[in-house]
Amino acid sequence: MFSCIVDADVLKKLVKASSILVDEAKIRTSSEGISMRAVDSANVAMVSFELKRDAFELFEADESEIGVDLHRLEDVLELGKKGDKVSLSVMDDEKLRIKIRNLSYTLSLIDPSSMRRDPRVPNLEFSAEVWVNGMEVDRAIKAASKISDHIVLGVENEVFYMEAEGDTDSMRLELTKDELLELKGGNARSMFSLDYLSDMSKSFRTTDEVRIYLGTDYPVKITFPVTADGEVSYLLAPRIESE
Amino acid sequence: MFSCIVDADVLKKLVKASSILVDEAKIRTSSEGISMRAVDSANVAMVSFELKRDAFELFEADESEIGVDLHRLEDVLELGKKGDKVSLSVMDDEKLRIKIRNLSYTLSLIDPSSMRRDPRVPNLEFSAEVWVNGMEVDRAIKAASKISDHIVLGVENEVFYMEAEGDTDSMRLELTKDELLELKGGNARSMFSLDYLSDMSKSFRTTDEVRIYLGTDYPVKITFPVTADGEVSYLLAPRIESE
Amino acid sequence: MFSCIVDADVLKKLVKASSILVDEAKIRTSSEGISMRAVDSANVAMVSFELKRDAFELFEADESEIGVDLHRLEDVLELGKKGDKVSLSVMDDEKLRIKIRNLSYTLSLIDPSSMRRDPRVPNLEFSAEVWVNGMEVDRAIKAASKISDHIVLGVENEVFYMEAEGDTDSMRLELTKDELLELKGGNARSMFSLDYLSDMSKSFRTTDEVRIYLGTDYPVKITFPVTADGEVSYLLAPRIESE
Repeated sequence: MFSCIVDADVLKKLVKASSILVDEAKIRTSSEGISMRAVDSANVAMVSFELKRDAFELFEADESEIGVDLHRLEDVLELGKKGDKVSLSVMDDEKLRIKIRNLSYTLSLIDPSSMRRDPRVPNLEFSAEVWVNGMEVDRAIKAASKISDHIVLGVENEVFYMEAEGDTDSMRLELTKDELLELKGGNARSMFSLDYLSDMSKSFRTTDEVRIYLGTDYPVKITFPVTADGEVSYLLAPRIESE
Repeated sequence: MFSCIVDADVLKKLVKASSILVDEAKIRTSSEGISMRAVDSANVAMVSFELKRDAFELFEADESEIGVDLHRLEDVLELGKKGDKVSLSVMDDEKLRIKIRNLSYTLSLIDPSSMRRDPRVPNLEFSAEVWVNGMEVDRAIKAASKISDHIVLGVENEVFYMEAEGDTDSMRLELTKDELLELKGGNARSMFSLDYLSDMSKSFRTTDEVRIYLGTDYPVKITFPVTADGEVSYLLAPRIESE
Repeated sequence: MFSCIVDADVLKKLVKASSILVDEAKIRTSSEGISMRAVDSANVAMVSFELKRDAFELFEADESEIGVDLHRLEDVLELGKKGDKVSLSVMDDEKLRIKIRNLSYTLSLIDPSSMRRDPRVPNLEFSAEVWVNGMEVDRAIKAASKISDHIVLGVENEVFYMEAEGDTDSMRLELTKDELLELKGGNARSMFSLDYLSDMSKSFRTTDEVRIYLGTDYPVKITFPVTADGEVSYLLAPRIESE
């Protein structure tokens, strides 16, 4: 049994943040809320989200799994306007009923047992943690995309930097500890694919506080809130810097 | 003889509403105002409009017909800004002179005798009449377009509904009598092509009051005002629902 | 040596106005400010600009030339937001360092000696001079583009006009001396390619005062300010009107 009412906007953000990496998602429901975790088909990036029951206006759920076509769900949520509530309910384990004001939608669910198993979350220890305005990160990613297809993220002497090098041109964004919301830990430096980061940054570029966890030649974890009781998290494997 | 001054915006709405169905229009002028009626090339839909002389700032016309290339006229009217007046005059039955502020345009007219004859307006009796906000209708049409290429419009027990069924998904908008501006008559149910309705809804989605006339397996008539003294009307043939 | 700080917006306007005609530019620096002059590859149009040292917040320059890829520079300046300052400095005559807030960019410069020589500015005497709102000119250019690929600009009896003739349709914008900011000189009439004028008008359509210098079957010169101490100038060869 699953039935809930939530801000259409919040759900839309979760779905959009996920659909850049995967087409289908296995959403876990429990008395605590809903959550999801999935890896992209190239096994390079993971997305997960969590929305706690306090984020819902109404919430009733057993321990269960719901297999959803994310693009279909996104299409439906696009029909909601600012401020709209959306009501979701699962019927006979086969259909998802979506209601936005007087509009009802029925989506066929995907059998969760036919879907990829949830990815294992690797046990990671990051050497640096940066809290930064999403817009700054997005701006550097856009700047880097003009000249390269990868970007380095790093921390050196309490300065967070993002830099890229093209054949003839180069760019670098520097944010000192004072210009950041928070900076913890020591140095770090890893290179990532801009393909992935560009898509991801669309999900957090309007978010005031994005948290970036870094190491050296190590994955990056990026987390950001979509509401008081809901959060998205990306994990992206590094690319090896050639000398 | 034909000469008039009218809000560029009003004329633009009439022309745009018509050009989704036909490329050329035979506009009738008389001392009462102007009017037009045309059927699309597939003979599935009809558009007509009427603009009464009170809608004009200046109006002088004999009983006549003017053959116009609607896309050309639309192009010219696009040059007008909010609040602009447009002045139209026919010169020697061959040219239409259009003036928007200090910009003059001369369009060649089409000989009306070379054009299709005006369609006969069928004598229709509808079993239900719904007055509804255009935005609601547009929203349901967009929702339906995600899953199907046709949509059912109907009235049942004083509830107006729009519904569509795809291979796996379905949608339904319901508006009770209280949620409508007006609901008259009894039950009705007919299916229509979304291709046509999507184009039509672009013309009325910002209109507060759209009137929809329905029957069962019957054409739909949709009328909406573009100004106090001007109205557009669409007539669309039904598609037969297969069981 | 070259080092300056200037409004990102002002520099962006200069670069955009130039990049419609040429890909690379040889920017001259001196203690007076910066300037540029270039001819398009078809030798039909010339663009030049000048930005005086008073336009800069900080300005230090020797007499020199800087070879720049305009599209690259435009890409970087796009990253600036309204109100941002940009700092430029040349390093070792080989790299241009661009700084917009905490974002640094390093662009490779082009060796000026490998570039086309600066065009000679022809000695022109115009018979008429028109000062007009850029938006009016842009509107007429858009209107003409709907029906033709060239447009006539002229002055006759103290009326400035822009007109175009298509196969069946024609347009004409007329602005009397009262509707213009200024009108000097006598009659003039020349025809120009809309390809060029459409691109140019994107650079001045939001400019209040555009100055147009005309002759008969003669080039047109169009100048407009981008700030109090900076100006762009276009020169465009006429097309010969066939009878």
